[in-house]
Amino acid sequence: MGDLPYYTWEEVQSRIVQIQKEHQICVHKKELSELDVSHRILRFKNYMVAMINKNLLPLQHRMPLLGDSIFYTRGLKYNFQLIFFWGPGCLFQNEWSLKPEYKRAGSRLELAEKLSQRILWIGLANLLLCPLVLVWQILYAFFSYTEVLRREPGSLGARCWSLYGRCYLRHFNELDHQLQARLSRAYKPASKYMNCFLSPLLAVAAKHMGFLAGSVLAVLIALTVYDEDVLAVEHVLSMVTLLGVVVTICRSFIPEEHMVFCPEQLLKVILAHIHYMPDHWQRSAHRAETRSEFAQLFQYKAVFILEELLSPLLTPLVLIFKLRPKSLEIIDFFRNFTVEVVGVGDTCSFAQMDVRQHGNPAWMSAGKTEASVYQQAEDGKTELSLMHFAITNPRWQPPRECSAFLSHLRERVQKDSGGTTPKKSRRSGTAAALLWIVTAV
Amino acid sequence: MGDLPYYTWEEVQSRIVQIQKEHQICVHKKELSELDVSHRILRFKNYMVAMINKNLLPLQHRMPLLGDSIFYTRGLKYNFQLIFFWGPGCLFQNEWSLKPEYKRAGSRLELAEKLSQRILWIGLANLLLCPLVLVWQILYAFFSYTEVLRREPGSLGARCWSLYGRCYLRHFNELDHQLQARLSRAYKPASKYMNCFLSPLLAVAAKHMGFLAGSVLAVLIALTVYDEDVLAVEHVLSMVTLLGVVVTICRSFIPEEHMVFCPEQLLKVILAHIHYMPDHWQRSAHRAETRSEFAQLFQYKAVFILEELLSPLLTPLVLIFKLRPKSLEIIDFFRNFTVEVVGVGDTCSFAQMDVRQHGNPAWMSAGKTEASVYQQAEDGKTELSLMHFAITNPRWQPPRECSAFLSHLRERVQKDSGGTTPKKSRRSGTAAALLWIVTAV
Amino acid sequence: MGDLPYYTWEEVQSRIVQIQKEHQICVHKKELSELDVSHRILRFKNYMVAMINKNLLPLQHRMPLLGDSIFYTRGLKYNFQLIFFWGPGCLFQNEWSLKPEYKRAGSRLELAEKLSQRILWIGLANLLLCPLVLVWQILYAFFSYTEVLRREPGSLGARCWSLYGRCYLRHFNELDHQLQARLSRAYKPASKYMNCFLSPLLAVAAKHMGFLAGSVLAVLIALTVYDEDVLAVEHVLSMVTLLGVVVTICRSFIPEEHMVFCPEQLLKVILAHIHYMPDHWQRSAHRAETRSEFAQLFQYKAVFILEELLSPLLTPLVLIFKLRPKSLEIIDFFRNFTVEVVGVGDTCSFAQMDVRQHGNPAWMSAGKTEASVYQQAEDGKTELSLMHFAITNPRWQPPRECSAFLSHLRERVQKDSGGTTPKKSRRSGTAAALLWIVTAV
Repeated sequence: MGDLPYYTWEEVQSRIVQIQKEHQICVHKKELSELDVSHRILRFKNYMVAMINKNLLPLQHRMPLLGDSIFYTRGLKYNFQLIFFWGPGCLFQNEWSLKPEYKRAGSRLELAEKLSQRILWIGLANLLLCPLVLVWQILYAFFSYTEVLRREPGSLGARCWSLYGRCYLRHFNELDHQLQARLSRAYKPASKYMNCFLSPLLAVAAKHMGFLAGSVLAVLIALTVYDEDVLAVEHVLSMVTLLGVVVTICRSFIPEEHMVFCPEQLLKVILAHIHYMPDHWQRSAHRAETRSEFAQLFQYKAVFILEELLSPLLTPLVLIFKLRPKSLEIIDFFRNFTVEVVGVGDTCSFAQMDVRQHGNPAWMSAGKTEASVYQQAEDGKTELSLMHFAITNPRWQPPRECSAFLSHLRERVQKDSGGTTPKKSRRSGTAAALLWIVTAV
Repeated sequence: MGDLPYYTWEEVQSRIVQIQKEHQICVHKKELSELDVSHRILRFKNYMVAMINKNLLPLQHRMPLLGDSIFYTRGLKYNFQLIFFWGPGCLFQNEWSLKPEYKRAGSRLELAEKLSQRILWIGLANLLLCPLVLVWQILYAFFSYTEVLRREPGSLGARCWSLYGRCYLRHFNELDHQLQARLSRAYKPASKYMNCFLSPLLAVAAKHMGFLAGSVLAVLIALTVYDEDVLAVEHVLSMVTLLGVVVTICRSFIPEEHMVFCPEQLLKVILAHIHYMPDHWQRSAHRAETRSEFAQLFQYKAVFILEELLSPLLTPLVLIFKLRPKSLEIIDFFRNFTVEVVGVGDTCSFAQMDVRQHGNPAWMSAGKTEASVYQQAEDGKTELSLMHFAITNPRWQPPRECSAFLSHLRERVQKDSGGTTPKKSRRSGTAAALLWIVTAV
Repeated sequence: MGDLPYYTWEEVQSRIVQIQKEHQICVHKKELSELDVSHRILRFKNYMVAMINKNLLPLQHRMPLLGDSIFYTRGLKYNFQLIFFWGPGCLFQNEWSLKPEYKRAGSRLELAEKLSQRILWIGLANLLLCPLVLVWQILYAFFSYTEVLRREPGSLGARCWSLYGRCYLRHFNELDHQLQARLSRAYKPASKYMNCFLSPLLAVAAKHMGFLAGSVLAVLIALTVYDEDVLAVEHVLSMVTLLGVVVTICRSFIPEEHMVFCPEQLLKVILAHIHYMPDHWQRSAHRAETRSEFAQLFQYKAVFILEELLSPLLTPLVLIFKLRPKSLEIIDFFRNFTVEVVGVGDTCSFAQMDVRQHGNPAWMSAGKTEASVYQQAEDGKTELSLMHFAITNPRWQPPRECSAFLSHLRERVQKDSGGTTPKKSRRSGTAAALLWIVTAV
């Protein structure tokens, strides 16, 4: 048992598969595949990833001053899970199966009405508990970050993957530690990428401002060295402190003298790890818009804390005014995209990663997919998830269509690496990106 | 307009070329090439690069104690520009054309006499203004660096590219941001290279010295921990401070325990970015002379500041006693190496990067160049600039001879990378270096 | 002479070889080979490496609580050298030849008895001098580390190659600077490897503990900001200090948020530099045992200092109770594994790196070696040393059998790099490791 932390997931998984063969711990099936294990662990997370992929959850909001901004906090996530998966009156009757009425199309309007009611009540409960939660959040933030702030004040200027980013970038059937490893590998280039953007105008202003503040500071320092009693003069000490802060702030806007500016390459390295990226980022890595869009996935730690603090106030509003109108869509989503897998129970059909059912023609599934636009996963999530799962589980036997897709993909990669590089290929951006990711993996 | 900072130079340049086609903003010519744009922006800088390349400006001085040392400061640079390009009575009649009399060989002695007079007057003006400028420099340094010194005292031990280095390493027609990017990329390996040289004898001495000082310090620290009043004893506190400084200085001479010493590889990486390097550095990267020669390009920040402080005192001397005797050479230089380009005006002929006129046989232009030794650019600057410009402006159509040179170069590179590595080739060092740089690019 | 520090060893060595040809500085031989030079410099070190390789010296001890642990300090090493090589009555009659009686098998029991006596006396001398040495060690540690500890308290948490590690990882005929360079290159990945192991259970505990301490600290900080006099209250200041220490310690057990966990790759990189590694580490880099075994080679600096402090107490015990019973084995070792080389004197036969005499069939010498198990070097040291020496001295002419082995090895590498990667080869782990190292070199 003490060794357990030092086992890799592959070892644990292969033991489960082995034990099933010997003792049949899952009674409905003879053999468990790696996909079955993932399905069981990630049942609800797959649903969340799919809902966010199909843009079903109301996370994007048009704000009066800030423009399009994404709001997704731990509180909101908890409420979503409560409504769909756990709470009393949720859509699931137990941990592994949807309530039967939600599988039938007949009573969809009725069920939507019921769900809408439920969301309203939970929203109101949130509103009621808001002061309590707010105080809790403030205390938690205070206890967590005061000491950090004192020890290393720069840490709030660091960045972290946003909660939305973690969902947007997650593959279907990707375990927590795999996602974490992928994002950790991308962390350094992503930080570098965000830091290499500094407005040249702001830099000039900051340089002059910093020089001014620095000059006054220099004089004060010189005076102090000459005679320590200067510090005793009223306001001198506070002025030194203030000027120091001004200089520090100014310097944070001045790019490092020997910084190398190569956003295009950095974004490429990032893409090789995070795998998902809107098409229009290609060839415009140096634009301010690309940066601000990437900032939604990779936010300031300070912004993260602020959002968490605001969460108790905004969550009830989002639930009542934004989520409720989507009740019918949600009911439809769960009915249309739930399949029962023997030995696993009800799972999200997207998580089957079947290119025939959910493939996107733009992502090299052309000819292989029969999915309508409603059924297609966005951003090539089906294809990329399939590829990722096949790579991380080499012993897994994919179904026939998927095997065909994968071998086709491998051929293309081989041909590409032999001939021209994917970078210069004239194929559509998405397909090129897919090939680039596969090559990088 | 707010987006302008986020445009790449390539985008800006291609728009200028496009607009010329539509509106003919330059009236003398139908189409502007990328080279024309560069010529206009870098007219005077190209002259300066060429003059430094041909060793025309008196920057190298034999000093009584320091040996050969290079002195080139912002003040000196400003004076050079004043004399040649801007000031009243300078060589140029406006921003784009040399005065006609300087283009004729007839009155060269007369003009040289006039220039000599002018340099004398400007030198005397410098001498007169010296106290004022000196005070300004001191104040400027005080205001700029006091605060930095207090915040991070180690920053003066950092290094920076010297002003001379920036000129020596600059290609013809290389824009500021391109040079900056190149030098920034070389900064890290260059710092590493300079730091991996520590005299072993000095290290042994520093180790013993540091141990001694550390021992006494240890005793004082122990006494202080035992009884805080020890600090109140006269001289104890100042002794602790002094010993701390001694230990710090000693430690800076002791190489890091786990440092990897590989100067040869580091210099190779540096060369791949800075492109210019004297031949005799090859295979002697580990020698002290190589290091001290490289230190002229890559000096201590502290030395840079010191030179700037001394500049007001030394500039008039350099002008009057060193530059004046070169008046005739300068007049000849401007007459011989100025060409008029349609739509651009007078530019430095070196900046045309024509291997036929200014190529150096040692740099693979053999057979292609018709240049006399006086006409050849040193260090293969013509060839390397041509290569650099062709690589950074792939859409540029070089003239016939240059195309031939470039395609010949590409063939050689291909053959080399197929067969033996350039490192082991038996060709002359310079040609090998050229190939290595091309391969690295 | 002032240039001497800037010569590479290759230059010095080739000069020695050259001078021998001209002036015959070594009278017994016409030409000195690179191996002869190494033999002369590393005569005793080669013996030590061989004895540690054959596990002759008693370094591994079963401790009551700590399990198998390795104890090898500078004091112990000095005593070993005193007993075998230097002291009065040692095994060598001068710097280059073993006493004749030790080369004859006849009087082995007698000589073992004599050696045993000598070890006893030296052990007793150690015991007698123990207080003095202990005081010296304590003073030395105090003088060396007090100041370091104050300047950078984290430096004791850093790691260093243990004295045992340096012997275990050393090739035969490897000069100090070569070993140092190899270990320095491995230092960074090795530090990373050790740091990426943090017990998940401990991390959870540390997180909670840290949060608790941080909370209390936050309150105290807030109070202080509100009113500075809070600090004057008894115990508040000491509590703030204490809590700060607790938080710091807790944090050192929490893995960095964006750490990438890839022990397998790190160990591969380390192996490429350190060359020696037990077989069972392969494919179990993520296990706790592997880490703790590697920690014997790469110990905490604090542990190193502690061992040095304990050395005076433990050295006499090791000598008297552990080394003495091995007297006969030692006598046999020196008799069996000493050869006289013309122009060099007596050297350790292992250092000849003759795969026929000391090769290990598991390390690709199968068919070429005639060595009995007693004669085989462990861990493929003969093969790896031969390879390393041939690579670092390309001009060296190895004897016939060794050339055959080397060319065979090169063929295998070529075949491997062409076909499958060595990683996936189905050959025995050791051979695969050898190939991997050669490829990496």
